[in-house]
Amino acid sequence: MATVHDPSDTGGRLIAASKVNGTSVYNTDGEKLGTVYDVMLDKVSGQTQYAIMSFGGFLGIGDKFHPLPWNQLTYDPREGGYVVNLDRNRLEGAPVYSPNELGMWDDLRGRDIDVYYGRPGI
Amino acid sequence: MATVHDPSDTGGRLIAASKVNGTSVYNTDGEKLGTVYDVMLDKVSGQTQYAIMSFGGFLGIGDKFHPLPWNQLTYDPREGGYVVNLDRNRLEGAPVYSPNELGMWDDLRGRDIDVYYGRPGI
Repeated sequence: MATVHDPSDTGGRLIAASKVNGTSVYNTDGEKLGTVYDVMLDKVSGQTQYAIMSFGGFLGIGDKFHPLPWNQLTYDPREGGYVVNLDRNRLEGAPVYSPNELGMWDDLRGRDIDVYYGRPGI
Repeated sequence: MATVHDPSDTGGRLIAASKVNGTSVYNTDGEKLGTVYDVMLDKVSGQTQYAIMSFGGFLGIGDKFHPLPWNQLTYDPREGGYVVNLDRNRLEGAPVYSPNELGMWDDLRGRDIDVYYGRPGI
Protein backbone atom coordinates (compact mmCIF):
# COMPACT_ATOMS: atom_id res chain seq x y z
CA MET A 1 0.00 0.00 0.00
CA ALA A 2 1.32 3.40 -0.92
CA THR A 3 1.70 5.82 1.95
CA VAL A 4 2.81 9.38 2.24
CA HIS A 5 6.12 8.08 3.56
CA ASP A 6 6.80 6.55 0.15
CA PRO A 7 7.95 9.23 -2.32
CA SER A 8 6.32 7.27 -5.12
CA ASP A 9 2.94 7.76 -3.48
CA THR A 10 0.65 9.87 -5.61
CA GLY A 11 -2.52 9.63 -3.56
CA GLY A 12 -2.01 11.97 -0.65
CA ARG A 13 -1.96 15.73 -0.73
CA LEU A 14 0.80 15.94 1.88
CA ILE A 15 4.28 14.54 2.27
CA ALA A 16 6.43 14.35 5.39
CA ALA A 17 9.46 16.64 5.15
CA SER A 18 11.64 13.72 6.20
CA LYS A 19 10.48 11.82 3.11
CA VAL A 20 10.94 14.51 0.47
CA ASN A 21 14.42 13.19 -0.31
CA GLY A 22 14.31 11.00 -3.40
CA THR A 23 11.22 12.47 -5.06
CA SER A 24 11.75 12.34 -8.83
CA VAL A 25 12.18 15.42 -11.02
CA TYR A 26 11.48 15.39 -14.77
CA ASN A 27 11.88 17.81 -17.64
CA THR A 28 8.92 18.81 -19.80
CA ASP A 29 9.68 15.90 -22.18
CA GLY A 30 9.13 13.47 -19.31
CA GLU A 31 12.81 12.55 -18.96
CA LYS A 32 14.00 12.03 -15.41
CA LEU A 33 16.62 14.63 -14.54
CA GLY A 34 17.28 13.70 -10.94
CA THR A 35 15.72 13.86 -7.52
CA VAL A 36 14.89 16.25 -4.72
CA TYR A 37 17.59 16.07 -2.07
CA ASP A 38 16.05 18.45 0.46
CA VAL A 39 13.88 21.55 0.65
CA MET A 40 14.49 24.84 2.45
CA LEU A 41 11.58 26.05 4.58
CA ASP A 42 10.84 29.51 5.90
CA LYS A 43 10.88 29.04 9.68
CA VAL A 44 8.14 31.60 10.25
CA SER A 45 5.65 31.00 7.44
CA GLY A 46 6.42 27.33 6.86
CA GLN A 47 6.55 27.97 3.11
CA THR A 48 9.02 25.96 1.03
CA GLN A 49 11.32 28.48 -0.64
CA TYR A 50 13.84 26.28 -2.45
CA ALA A 51 14.07 22.69 -3.59
CA ILE A 52 17.63 21.39 -3.48
CA MET A 53 18.01 19.17 -6.51
CA SER A 54 20.46 16.38 -7.17
CA PHE A 55 21.06 16.27 -10.94
CA GLY A 56 24.32 14.33 -10.68
CA GLY A 57 23.57 11.67 -13.25
CA PHE A 58 22.08 14.04 -15.78
CA LEU A 59 24.78 16.69 -15.75
CA GLY A 60 27.62 14.36 -14.87
CA ILE A 61 28.90 16.55 -12.07
CA GLY A 62 27.97 14.25 -9.15
CA ASP A 63 28.01 15.43 -5.56
CA LYS A 64 26.84 18.94 -6.41
CA PHE A 65 23.42 20.30 -5.59
CA HIS A 66 21.25 22.82 -7.42
CA PRO A 67 18.82 24.82 -5.29
CA LEU A 68 15.84 25.92 -7.38
CA PRO A 69 13.21 28.47 -6.38
CA TRP A 70 10.10 26.49 -5.46
CA ASN A 71 8.08 28.21 -8.17
CA GLN A 72 10.23 26.44 -10.82
CA LEU A 73 8.68 23.10 -9.79
CA THR A 74 5.27 21.84 -10.86
CA TYR A 75 3.88 18.78 -9.13
CA ASP A 76 2.71 16.05 -11.51
CA PRO A 77 0.39 13.66 -9.67
CA ARG A 78 0.59 11.10 -12.52
CA GLU A 79 4.34 10.82 -12.09
CA GLY A 80 4.32 11.38 -8.34
CA GLY A 81 7.13 13.85 -8.90
CA TYR A 82 7.98 17.35 -10.09
CA VAL A 83 8.47 18.84 -13.55
CA VAL A 84 10.92 21.66 -14.24
CA ASN A 85 11.04 23.61 -17.48
CA LEU A 86 14.83 24.04 -17.56
CA ASP A 87 17.20 22.80 -20.23
CA ARG A 88 20.71 21.49 -19.80
CA ASN A 89 22.40 24.80 -20.61
CA ARG A 90 20.30 26.61 -18.04
CA LEU A 91 21.17 24.09 -15.35
CA GLU A 92 24.86 23.94 -16.25
CA GLY A 93 25.22 27.65 -15.62
CA ALA A 94 23.21 27.66 -12.41
CA PRO A 95 24.49 28.08 -8.86
CA VAL A 96 25.69 24.74 -7.45
CA TYR A 97 26.96 23.79 -4.02
CA SER A 98 28.84 20.90 -2.51
CA PRO A 99 27.33 18.95 0.39
CA ASN A 100 29.51 20.90 2.84
CA GLU A 101 28.48 24.23 1.36
CA LEU A 102 24.80 23.33 1.78
CA GLY A 103 25.26 23.49 5.54
CA MET A 104 26.21 27.16 5.36
CA TRP A 105 23.03 28.46 3.77
CA ASP A 106 22.42 32.17 4.18
CA ASP A 107 20.02 34.69 2.74
CA LEU A 108 22.60 36.06 0.29
CA ARG A 109 22.73 32.67 -1.38
CA GLY A 110 18.99 32.80 -1.79
CA ARG A 111 19.33 36.08 -3.63
CA ASP A 112 21.97 34.65 -5.99
CA ILE A 113 19.60 31.82 -6.88
CA ASP A 114 16.60 34.13 -7.24
CA VAL A 115 18.55 36.38 -9.61
CA TYR A 116 19.73 33.46 -11.74
CA TYR A 117 16.26 32.01 -12.18
CA GLY A 118 14.53 35.37 -12.43
CA ARG A 119 12.29 34.77 -9.44
CA PRO A 120 9.76 37.58 -9.27
CA GLY A 121 8.97 39.60 -6.20
CA ILE A 122 12.12 38.89 -4.21
CA MET B 1 29.51 28.57 13.98
CA ALA B 2 25.76 28.18 13.84
CA THR B 3 24.38 26.99 10.52
CA VAL B 4 20.94 26.34 9.21
CA HIS B 5 21.64 22.63 9.62
CA ASP B 6 21.81 23.13 13.38
CA PRO B 7 18.31 23.38 14.84
CA SER B 8 19.66 25.71 17.51
CA ASP B 9 20.59 28.22 14.83
CA THR B 10 18.62 31.42 15.14
CA GLY B 11 20.31 33.47 12.46
CA GLY B 12 18.95 32.23 9.17
CA ARG B 13 15.48 32.73 7.80
CA LEU B 14 15.39 29.23 6.34
CA ILE B 15 15.87 25.71 7.64
CA ALA B 16 16.44 22.50 5.70
CA ALA B 17 13.47 20.16 5.95
CA SER B 18 15.88 17.37 6.88
CA LYS B 19 16.94 19.38 9.93
CA VAL B 20 13.54 20.36 11.30
CA ASN B 21 13.56 17.32 13.58
CA GLY B 22 14.61 18.34 17.08
CA THR B 23 13.58 21.99 16.96
CA SER B 24 12.37 22.97 20.44
CA VAL B 25 8.77 23.84 21.27
CA TYR B 26 7.81 25.95 24.30
CA ASN B 27 4.59 27.02 25.97
CA THR B 28 3.80 30.69 26.51
CA ASP B 29 5.50 30.56 29.95
CA GLY B 30 8.77 29.61 28.25
CA GLU B 31 8.72 26.00 29.47
CA LYS B 32 9.99 23.46 26.97
CA LEU B 33 7.19 21.07 26.02
CA GLY B 34 8.99 18.94 23.48
CA THR B 35 10.35 19.04 19.96
CA VAL B 36 9.26 19.02 16.35
CA TYR B 37 9.54 15.48 14.99
CA ASP B 38 8.58 16.22 11.38
CA VAL B 39 6.40 18.54 9.31
CA MET B 40 3.81 17.69 6.67
CA LEU B 41 4.15 19.67 3.45
CA ASP B 42 1.61 20.28 0.70
CA LYS B 43 3.22 18.70 -2.37
CA VAL B 44 1.81 21.32 -4.73
CA SER B 45 2.12 24.60 -2.85
CA GLY B 46 5.08 23.66 -0.66
CA GLN B 47 3.28 25.10 2.37
CA THR B 48 3.80 23.39 5.73
CA GLN B 49 0.35 22.28 6.91
CA TYR B 50 1.12 20.39 10.13
CA ALA B 51 3.98 20.16 12.60
CA ILE B 52 4.25 16.70 14.13
CA MET B 53 5.22 17.24 17.75
CA SER B 54 6.89 14.92 20.17
CA PHE B 55 5.65 15.83 23.67
CA GLY B 56 6.60 12.49 25.26
CA GLY B 57 8.43 13.86 28.26
CA PHE B 58 5.85 16.50 29.06
CA LEU B 59 2.74 14.38 28.83
CA GLY B 60 4.38 11.14 29.91
CA ILE B 61 2.94 9.17 27.04
CA GLY B 62 6.22 8.59 25.11
CA ASP B 63 6.26 7.30 21.56
CA LYS B 64 3.11 9.15 20.55
CA PHE B 65 3.04 12.11 18.22
CA HIS B 66 0.73 15.14 18.12
CA PRO B 67 0.23 16.77 14.73
CA LEU B 68 -0.63 20.46 15.17
CA PRO B 69 -1.93 22.80 12.48
CA TRP B 70 1.00 25.00 11.47
CA ASN B 71 -0.90 28.12 12.50
CA GLN B 72 -0.68 26.98 16.16
CA LEU B 73 3.09 27.56 16.09
CA THR B 74 4.81 30.92 16.44
CA TYR B 75 8.52 31.11 15.70
CA ASP B 76 10.56 32.75 18.47
CA PRO B 77 13.94 33.82 17.09
CA ARG B 78 15.34 34.41 20.61
CA GLU B 79 14.72 30.79 21.55
CA GLY B 80 15.40 29.42 18.07
CA GLY B 81 12.21 27.42 18.48
CA TYR B 82 8.43 27.56 18.40
CA VAL B 83 5.86 28.66 20.96
CA VAL B 84 2.42 27.07 21.22
CA ASN B 85 -0.42 28.48 23.29
CA LEU B 86 -1.85 25.12 24.39
CA ASP B 87 -2.21 23.85 27.95
CA ARG B 88 -1.81 20.31 29.19
CA ASN B 89 -5.54 19.52 29.12
CA ARG B 90 -5.81 20.66 25.53
CA LEU B 91 -2.90 18.48 24.47
CA GLU B 92 -4.03 15.45 26.46
CA GLY B 93 -7.31 15.35 24.57
CA ALA B 94 -5.76 15.94 21.16
CA PRO B 95 -5.36 13.44 18.32
CA VAL B 96 -2.19 11.37 18.80
CA TYR B 97 -0.59 8.73 16.63
CA SER B 98 2.01 6.03 17.03
CA PRO B 99 5.10 6.03 14.80
CA ASN B 100 3.51 3.35 12.61
CA GLU B 101 0.29 5.30 12.26
CA LEU B 102 2.21 8.37 11.10
CA GLY B 103 3.12 6.50 7.92
CA MET B 104 -0.54 6.19 6.95
CA TRP B 105 -1.36 9.89 6.81
CA ASP B 106 -4.43 10.77 4.80
CA ASP B 107 -6.55 13.84 4.31
CA LEU B 108 -9.27 12.62 6.71
CA ARG B 109 -6.73 12.71 9.52
CA GLY B 110 -5.99 16.30 8.63
CA ARG B 111 -9.64 17.13 9.05
CA ASP B 112 -9.78 15.47 12.49
CA ILE B 113 -6.85 17.61 13.60
CA ASP B 114 -8.27 20.77 12.07
CA VAL B 115 -11.59 20.22 13.84
CA TYR B 116 -9.92 19.61 17.22
CA TYR B 117 -7.80 22.75 17.06
CA GLY B 118 -10.50 24.85 15.41
CA ARG B 119 -8.41 25.66 12.38
CA PRO B 120 -10.24 28.25 10.32
CA GLY B 121 -10.88 28.05 6.62
CA ILE B 122 -10.45 24.29 6.18
